[in-house]
Amino acid sequence: MDSVGKSFVRKDAASKATGAALFTADLKFPEMLFAATIRSPKPHIKILGIDDAKAREVMGVVGIYYAKDIPGENVVPLVFMDYPFLAEKEAKFQGQPIGLVVARDINTARKAVRLVKIKYRELRTVFDPLDAMKKTAPKIYGRDNIFKKFIVKKGNTKSAKPDVEVEDVFTTNYQVHAYLETQSMVAVPQPDGGVNVYGSMQCPFYVQDAVKKILGVPYNKVKIVQQTTGGAFGGKEDVPSIVAGHAAVLAAKTGKPVKLIYTREEDFQAMSKRHPGWAKIKYGAKKNGKIVSCEVKYILDGGAFSTLSPIVLWRGTVHAAGPYEIPNVYIETYAVATNKVPCGAYRGFGQPQIAFANESLIDILAEKLGMNPLEIRRINAIKKGGRTETGHKITGSIGLDKTINLAVKSAGWNRKWKHPSSKSGSRRYGIGMATSIYGVGLGAGGKHLAKSGSFVQVEPDGSVLVAVGNTEMGQGARTVLSQIAAEALGAPYEMVDLMATDTSRVPDSGPTVASRTTVMSGNSILNACKSIRKRIDDTVRKMLKAKGRVIAKDGFYHIGGKKVSYANAIARAWADRIHLTAAGWFRVEGTTYNEKNGQGDAYFTYTYSTMVAEVEVDVETGEVSILNFVSAHDIGKAINPKLAEGQIQGGGLQGIGYGTCENLVLENGKILNPNFTGYIVPTAVDAPPIKPIIVEEKYKGGPFGAKGLGEPPLICAAPAVANAIYNATGKRIKSLPIIPEKLVC
Amino acid sequence: MDSVGKSFVRKDAASKATGAALFTADLKFPEMLFAATIRSPKPHIKILGIDDAKAREVMGVVGIYYAKDIPGENVVPLVFMDYPFLAEKEAKFQGQPIGLVVARDINTARKAVRLVKIKYRELRTVFDPLDAMKKTAPKIYGRDNIFKKFIVKKGNTKSAKPDVEVEDVFTTNYQVHAYLETQSMVAVPQPDGGVNVYGSMQCPFYVQDAVKKILGVPYNKVKIVQQTTGGAFGGKEDVPSIVAGHAAVLAAKTGKPVKLIYTREEDFQAMSKRHPGWAKIKYGAKKNGKIVSCEVKYILDGGAFSTLSPIVLWRGTVHAAGPYEIPNVYIETYAVATNKVPCGAYRGFGQPQIAFANESLIDILAEKLGMNPLEIRRINAIKKGGRTETGHKITGSIGLDKTINLAVKSAGWNRKWKHPSSKSGSRRYGIGMATSIYGVGLGAGGKHLAKSGSFVQVEPDGSVLVAVGNTEMGQGARTVLSQIAAEALGAPYEMVDLMATDTSRVPDSGPTVASRTTVMSGNSILNACKSIRKRIDDTVRKMLKAKGRVIAKDGFYHIGGKKVSYANAIARAWADRIHLTAAGWFRVEGTTYNEKNGQGDAYFTYTYSTMVAEVEVDVETGEVSILNFVSAHDIGKAINPKLAEGQIQGGGLQGIGYGTCENLVLENGKILNPNFTGYIVPTAVDAPPIKPIIVEEKYKGGPFGAKGLGEPPLICAAPAVANAIYNATGKRIKSLPIIPEKLVC
Repeated sequence: MDSVGKSFVRKDAASKATGAALFTADLKFPEMLFAATIRSPKPHIKILGIDDAKAREVMGVVGIYYAKDIPGENVVPLVFMDYPFLAEKEAKFQGQPIGLVVARDINTARKAVRLVKIKYRELRTVFDPLDAMKKTAPKIYGRDNIFKKFIVKKGNTKSAKPDVEVEDVFTTNYQVHAYLETQSMVAVPQPDGGVNVYGSMQCPFYVQDAVKKILGVPYNKVKIVQQTTGGAFGGKEDVPSIVAGHAAVLAAKTGKPVKLIYTREEDFQAMSKRHPGWAKIKYGAKKNGKIVSCEVKYILDGGAFSTLSPIVLWRGTVHAAGPYEIPNVYIETYAVATNKVPCGAYRGFGQPQIAFANESLIDILAEKLGMNPLEIRRINAIKKGGRTETGHKITGSIGLDKTINLAVKSAGWNRKWKHPSSKSGSRRYGIGMATSIYGVGLGAGGKHLAKSGSFVQVEPDGSVLVAVGNTEMGQGARTVLSQIAAEALGAPYEMVDLMATDTSRVPDSGPTVASRTTVMSGNSILNACKSIRKRIDDTVRKMLKAKGRVIAKDGFYHIGGKKVSYANAIARAWADRIHLTAAGWFRVEGTTYNEKNGQGDAYFTYTYSTMVAEVEVDVETGEVSILNFVSAHDIGKAINPKLAEGQIQGGGLQGIGYGTCENLVLENGKILNPNFTGYIVPTAVDAPPIKPIIVEEKYKGGPFGAKGLGEPPLICAAPAVANAIYNATGKRIKSLPIIPEKLVC
Repeated sequence: MDSVGKSFVRKDAASKATGAALFTADLKFPEMLFAATIRSPKPHIKILGIDDAKAREVMGVVGIYYAKDIPGENVVPLVFMDYPFLAEKEAKFQGQPIGLVVARDINTARKAVRLVKIKYRELRTVFDPLDAMKKTAPKIYGRDNIFKKFIVKKGNTKSAKPDVEVEDVFTTNYQVHAYLETQSMVAVPQPDGGVNVYGSMQCPFYVQDAVKKILGVPYNKVKIVQQTTGGAFGGKEDVPSIVAGHAAVLAAKTGKPVKLIYTREEDFQAMSKRHPGWAKIKYGAKKNGKIVSCEVKYILDGGAFSTLSPIVLWRGTVHAAGPYEIPNVYIETYAVATNKVPCGAYRGFGQPQIAFANESLIDILAEKLGMNPLEIRRINAIKKGGRTETGHKITGSIGLDKTINLAVKSAGWNRKWKHPSSKSGSRRYGIGMATSIYGVGLGAGGKHLAKSGSFVQVEPDGSVLVAVGNTEMGQGARTVLSQIAAEALGAPYEMVDLMATDTSRVPDSGPTVASRTTVMSGNSILNACKSIRKRIDDTVRKMLKAKGRVIAKDGFYHIGGKKVSYANAIARAWADRIHLTAAGWFRVEGTTYNEKNGQGDAYFTYTYSTMVAEVEVDVETGEVSILNFVSAHDIGKAINPKLAEGQIQGGGLQGIGYGTCENLVLENGKILNPNFTGYIVPTAVDAPPIKPIIVEEKYKGGPFGAKGLGEPPLICAAPAVANAIYNATGKRIKSLPIIPEKLVC
């Protein structure tokens, strides 16, 4: 292939390296105003009144607005409709938006916010999800504080008759997305009604839904254009809707462009996080190592509003037994309300929490069986023809064994693994591994979103414009999708580029999440290119006076031994007034899910990962050094191998941070370390060598065989490290992050 | 029909009435710079050098650039490639751009321009096209100063044997477009290379061609977005390319957004105008009034560069015998170079000049035959099955006779027409008429441009986004095309709107000229809507559990007696993840033209017009008052009757201005009255009652039967007035405009 499988430099490399790329903060519009948010000072209050007289007196304040000023509906549209754009009578978490100040400059807006006095009465609070599920708990959501419950029932765990059982409880903390720029939006009122919104985001169509809702205007009057987005990781999936909705209301009220950018502290305080997880899990196995039963109770701490918790929980649920074929499975999962910041999407989406439990417990099981962690995984890893916990028979692309083999080989596992009892001294070496299965895309649980539009236009000189509904947020979509379009058209890669994602260019294509962009937008682009290629091919046949299949290769279209250059064929098609534009579409067919028993063909395909961590632990200080980290992934096909490797390395480091240092501390619902001075994210200097390994078990349903890769590089990184730490120290830490304090206590 | 044929209020009415609409002057971008143009001080010079040292010293000047600084090619791409963006060694008209100053504010830029000294030697000049055709003339273009020559030869004029012959020479002056805002562009460099250009224009794809050419970048890196355009009339067809090219070069050089807006004086001085015309014309007729021969020599004064002259001349050529069926025709036409401002497109595009000759001479012929002007037109007007001067047999929609009958009936012609010899007194009443045929669109001469793209997207709430490559420039395209899309989709008109024209949304759709937008973009929208309707109709059949044809009516889709609302059908289609976006396309087939004899099926269809003017002339002062003006047009179908009437009234007044007062005065190539203080355009208070009459001879090839209407309302207005003036005074004025001086001399 000419373009696919090549490690082209990313399209946005130069503009990002030179600083030319425009972030939302860089945008300026004539007469633009600036906004800041009035927030709840406590985690649960009844609002009795608001005194903003002093704030209104501040010179430069243009207006202060509350829930009553919203022209449309005061609810953020998502799965359930419980989260108001602005609190009316009650606020349920500290930092919840109550009002908005708009002023001529940002400092004035923020100063005015500080002068607004909210009169309130504190209400009873609950911060622990297990407490929240008790009957006596104050009610944050519905009658039981349960946003959502799922059950998966495969076989019958009661009749499994294992020889050995292991059971334990594992917990995980929040994780903060730590994207480059904080939440930021600019809403610009349009002359003929409606609004354009520019901002940092993953999911422009969610933002469009929100702005439509809060303004009460038709969809075709709301245009959302993504700006350069410096990472998102789920943190710009749903919450940008709130920021955009606020900016849009202010723009509608003032008739002026309004910019709303969060400080890092309020971004920490009020924006979504990875859900803290609690999981009690039990594996039962035969003496030969074959796992015969798995029981899981898995609880996610959703915070004050449901946001994406139901679907984060769903992904966690349908992956909660791990990447193993187990005949008897019973899983019960809950997303629960508490008086804390609402949690949402984060790379892995409910899987990393449960993967930590799975992959820790399987090592415990191995030890109890007297087996090596590698051995037990080889025995139980799901294989071709096997059935997942949801009963989905995997017949196609499945490379789990290959990732295990390549990862352990790369790390020298057989040579290096020794039982922890053999270790001594103050600095101890350990090696650990973890594996995962990953259902690509939104799955049957998000089937209504399993669609994707595209727009492809070949210009007279052969340069190509491509638009999709998914976003470039650093992951390389612009580059990879350009490669797919170039390959499909027979165009040189250099001639193809994506436009900024803009809701008015393609139909709602669902969110940019769940490693779905390459497959969904890629297939949609192929659909558009197919129409265009048909017309180009007809032109080529006319030019070459030949029949038969047209092959695009090396910048030429070939039929048999004859050929014509890409540029000449396109020029001729234009001269003949051939239509070289098409709107493409792709939708997923065939996924199923029965909510009663959790059985069904949950995803259209799966990827598989194995990670091996080598660590050195200073048992006196608790300091963990990662010596080496190998991360192997079956992704079907790497459209751009270097970018795939980058994903693996970035996700690996993010998972290591999740496992070892990222530690948000809350006290009575208040975040005590809402900034990067207190919340420690691994930086480049902390990064261990991360060796990416790509396995290509080609997937027929993906563009050129690709399956997707966004989330898996993070999912089982933390348990691989935890297992290595156990291997070094003999200490099994059952709560993330494994900070030094936990190792030396 | 629900939407077509209704006089909805135009979509842009409110924003234009309230001032919310954003013109190019309203646009601001961060760090935006301002430009001004250095121009040739004389009509023909050899440039010896430029001293800009003083200009460069002015505080706030950022740069001064010349031809040598152009990164791409220094030629405005159009029909021929003779017009440089910036003159290098020679300038051929007074006002020709030579250099560009870019500065922090506009006053500084203009001040610096005044400080630039061009050292030059004056070259020989020629200002009259008849002189320019002489061998001894200085050469402005090629070896003979002839940009283009056409011949039409039908039958044999030598063997026509008329009983009566009339011959005369008629001339017309320039006409200035008098659009609201002067030429204006803002070029904004993009982070990843390329440029966005926002501006006032008719033809974004011409601008794109020009910016691509001058910068030497691929098409997909040049995005052109039209801003609110307050009228254009042809004056924003080709020349915005120059302004945009200049702004783009400055943006590329400085890396900053650059705004370039002309003063009214430089707009008068350097931008295109209607060509002055010279025509010697001869009709030969039998005694019964049947015209048997027509000979025409028609010369257009093109100015210093060819621009659109060849195709303006072509339209004039293939209409030069008038709306009559004449068996023997010989036409010879020339577009000629002179040292004056290049002329270009103006509503009517080479037809009004020759229509003045045709329609004056036919009255002369009638008088010589002792006939009434109405009678001779009835005899000769082309009828169904007749052949035009290019031999095109008209088999379809032809409503010329109807326009004649309705116009004369409305004006009370039979009651009011009296021979001029019967008039006396100082204030004399007169009535005159004129007719025209109009080939819609670009015709066979512009067949490569006879194509049009569209984009239609139905949103989840049924609101609809439409994009086309044609522009709204006041004529109502946004409204009319929304009506067409609404009708085709079965959507409520209120739910449909067009986006600003943007070259990245649709393929090159040719220019917005020649009354082609309704048919071309309308048909393209129908093409897109057809794909979408097919999918909606399938959904409707599923919902109604019925087969057969789906009829959209009154906001519902009907099959037999069953129905489902538009909103519900769209919601269901979205829920089913149906693709409701399509890229549409339309191209004209079947037009032909043989350049050797001027024969062929020149256009896909024709419209027909008759105008009757009633005047009162003060024979002592020469003052002409228009008492009544009736303008009847066969346009196939009025998509929006009120807008069609507006076109007729606006075009009528513009034609009356052309005929009676708009008088640009040049002396040695210099415009002496380059402003609205000296160049008199009729205003609202000057407007006579203009009665529009719409004839709907349905055209099968048009959207809902429409044929188009932009240009015809102007074409024969001036000769109708001229004939009325003759009827009042007995004075036959053979040169436009008929200013009072000509009547009292």
